[in-house]
Parts: sequence; structure tokens; C-alpha cells
Amino acid sequence: MKPASIFFESIEVKLRTGPDIIDITPELKRLIKKLSIGNGSLLATMVGSTGSLTTIEYEPGVVEDLKRAVDRLAPPGAEYEHEKAWHDGNGHSHVQAALLGPSLVLPVRNKRLKLGTWQQAVAINHDNRPRTRTIEVTITGTEGQQGAGS
Amino acid sequence: MKPASIFFESIEVKLRTGPDIIDITPELKRLIKKLSIGNGSLLATMVGSTGSLTTIEYEPGVVEDLKRAVDRLAPPGAEYEHEKAWHDGNGHSHVQAALLGPSLVLPVRNKRLKLGTWQQAVAINHDNRPRTRTIEVTITGTEGQQGAGS
Amino acid sequence: MKPASIFFESIEVKLRTGPDIIDITPELKRLIKKLSIGNGSLLATMVGSTGSLTTIEYEPGVVEDLKRAVDRLAPPGAEYEHEKAWHDGNGHSHVQAALLGPSLVLPVRNKRLKLGTWQQAVAINHDNRPRTRTIEVTITGTEGQQGAGS
Repeated sequence: MKPASIFFESIEVKLRTGPDIIDITPELKRLIKKLSIGNGSLLATMVGSTGSLTTIEYEPGVVEDLKRAVDRLAPPGAEYEHEKAWHDGNGHSHVQAALLGPSLVLPVRNKRLKLGTWQQAVAINHDNRPRTRTIEVTITGTEGQQGAGS
Repeated sequence: MKPASIFFESIEVKLRTGPDIIDITPELKRLIKKLSIGNGSLLATMVGSTGSLTTIEYEPGVVEDLKRAVDRLAPPGAEYEHEKAWHDGNGHSHVQAALLGPSLVLPVRNKRLKLGTWQQAVAINHDNRPRTRTIEVTITGTEGQQGAGS
Repeated sequence: MKPASIFFESIEVKLRTGPDIIDITPELKRLIKKLSIGNGSLLATMVGSTGSLTTIEYEPGVVEDLKRAVDRLAPPGAEYEHEKAWHDGNGHSHVQAALLGPSLVLPVRNKRLKLGTWQQAVAINHDNRPRTRTIEVTITGTEGQQGAGS
């Protein structure tokens, strides 16, 4: 058992017209290094209702397959009640983002983000226009000096 | 870096026959205000296997679109193995809830829940009857006096 | 308000060819008991990009229904861009895992994992071969002696 410290940061990401998927792992790793976290959890939340977070193997094939899959969940061309009131063309974006969810929890172990070898954290824009998005990151953990090697 | 404090609460929500979607943001904001959290994370979990949590723009159009989308993921009228053993008519409810997931992480910044302007936290009942549900909320953060403006 | 302590563990799970779904609740309960957590949050993350975590009523019917549902989200026999480059037959596995997500947050209350009566935490293997998977578990909470009954 160790006392927990808490750190809060935010990162900004530029995303193209959705579905667009970008790798945010390098940014998250940079934060962990800067803050000198030993062990703990990184909690990330996409701010905004047309974006989401998950993990994938970030290679062009999976990226394309996941784009197609989210467009099957809520196709851009279908009929949406949101459209009838707001006419902003992104009814599908709201549904896709809600189904995937805005939050992600990742472990920090021995001063590193612990992911699978082929696993990256990604941010997804589902909106029908490019968006600059804020992802709020809260890290709860031991400080690096104490926590390394737990 | 600041030492983390931890707070635990629960909220009760009354939900109609699923899919029903209600906005729980006001309740979560009330907790943060009451507990005087400065900065940290709010962790919420739906207790029960036929409910879920996510975020949406809580306006009638999106609410209706999301209801239709979850009923496409696991249609109420389809055949379910759960039904063959239990005959309680909610096979689809279990599948829908599992796909959306019971948990949600939201950031607290400067004593406020940080969401997008059009983003609300919602609880979903997927069950085929009205349910009163408990959502357990754990908040890890700095106390308001220390944390504000960090 | 109580000061938070942090604990980190990992569990290993053996999963059959996907979709395979196993109940990890007993292992999580064992950790909470061993660590003597009073109140807090258990944060779990599946390490690896073809696995996911969620909660279900773990009975054979729901397990089978959920397997069928994830195979509808991204059918094993469909065409995947991932396959064209990598030829490892698991394009669908990557998409399924990304849609369900790798992380799960569960409440700990009065030294126990708080779930619904019919709700269990499960790990899912979406890969097209058996996998032994690591799930990283971080628990932030009060120590049992202090926290019980709070």
C-alpha cells in the first residue's frame, strides 16, 4: 500500500472529418514521463459528445476496418431524429460516440504506460467536420521515486 | 502533485421500461459541489446487468436515435438463449447493456464536472420493465480549498 | 473525506478461441480481500488489442447471446483491410475489441466488490486463437481498517 497522488492534465488533438482515428499513445506517454508517475492509473475522457476513446492496434488496416464498423453502427446516410430538429448533418456522430463511450482507463506500471505490444490508445472523431478536441487526463498514482519496482 | 482524497457516494435513479435514457449530470454536479472536490476524477458504475452509462447530447432527437441504435444492436423481438432458460423477456437487455458497458469516467476541474457544452452523462435502462437503479460514484481528487485553480 | 491509498496487481486469464467469455469476479474479489480495501474503485484494463472487459449476468444463455452479438458487430467471415496486409485471420477480433473497449471501473464498498446480484465482471477474448491475457488491476481506496462502514 502506498499513498496516492493525483495529477491532472489535458491534451489537445486535431481530428479530421469523422470517422477519424488518431493515436494518442505518444502524448500519454509524454505526460507520464513528465509527471514522474511510478504506478497507478491513467484516466482519460474525451470532452464533447461526438468523440470517443478506445484502444486498437494502430495500423492502417485496423483503422480502416474500425471506421467501417462505426459507420455500420450508425450509418451517416440514415434517418435521425436529431437531424429533423437541428439539420447539422451529424445525427450519426452522436449515436456512434455514445455507443463507443468517452472514457478510457489505462494502467501505469514502473513509470510506463502498460499496453499490449500491438495496442495503442486512440481518439476518434465521429463528427461530420474536423474538430479540435480536448482530452482530460487524470493520473492517480505513486510518485516515480517511490513507486518504481513496487 | 497533490495528495489524493477519496469520496464515495451513490445515487438512485428511476428508469422506465427500456430503452430509457435519463440525464444524471445534475445529480453528479450536486455531489461534486457537496463534497468540495477541486480537481480529480469521478468514477461511476451502474449496479445491475441490464443498465449502462455513457455521455450524449441530451436532447430528444439524440435520445430517440440512441434508443433505436441500441435496439438494433440487440433487437427486443429476436431469439435469445437467455429466454429459453429464464423466460423473462429481457435477453436483448442483457446484450445491450454488456455492449455499452456499466462504467464511466469523468474529469473534475476547478470544482466542476468538465464536460463538453452539449455533453451530458446519462444512465440507460435496457430492461423490459421499469427499474430503480443504484449508480455508485467514487471521486478521487484534491479538496476544493487546495485544488481550485491548480 | 479520507486519504486514498493505491494498490496495483495483475491477474492472468486463459481464454479459448474467441469469442470466449470468462467470469473474473472471483479473482477480483480475492484481490480486494487480500489488500484489505475498505471503500474505493477497482480499475481494470485488458492488456492486448483483441480482448475486452464488461459486465454481464454470467449464465450460459447470456454468454451465448453476447458471443453472437459481438460476432454480428464484426463477423469473422467478412472482409477486413487488416487481413489484406497481415493474413492472420483476426480482422474481426480487432474491431470487436475496440467497440467493447478494454477498461472497466467497479466500486468497492465496505470491503466488497459492489455489483448487482446477477452481475459479474467478465473478460472476453475476441482473437481467433486461445490467448493467455494479463488484466492490470489498480485499486484506489481507503484501507479496510479505516474505511469499513464509512
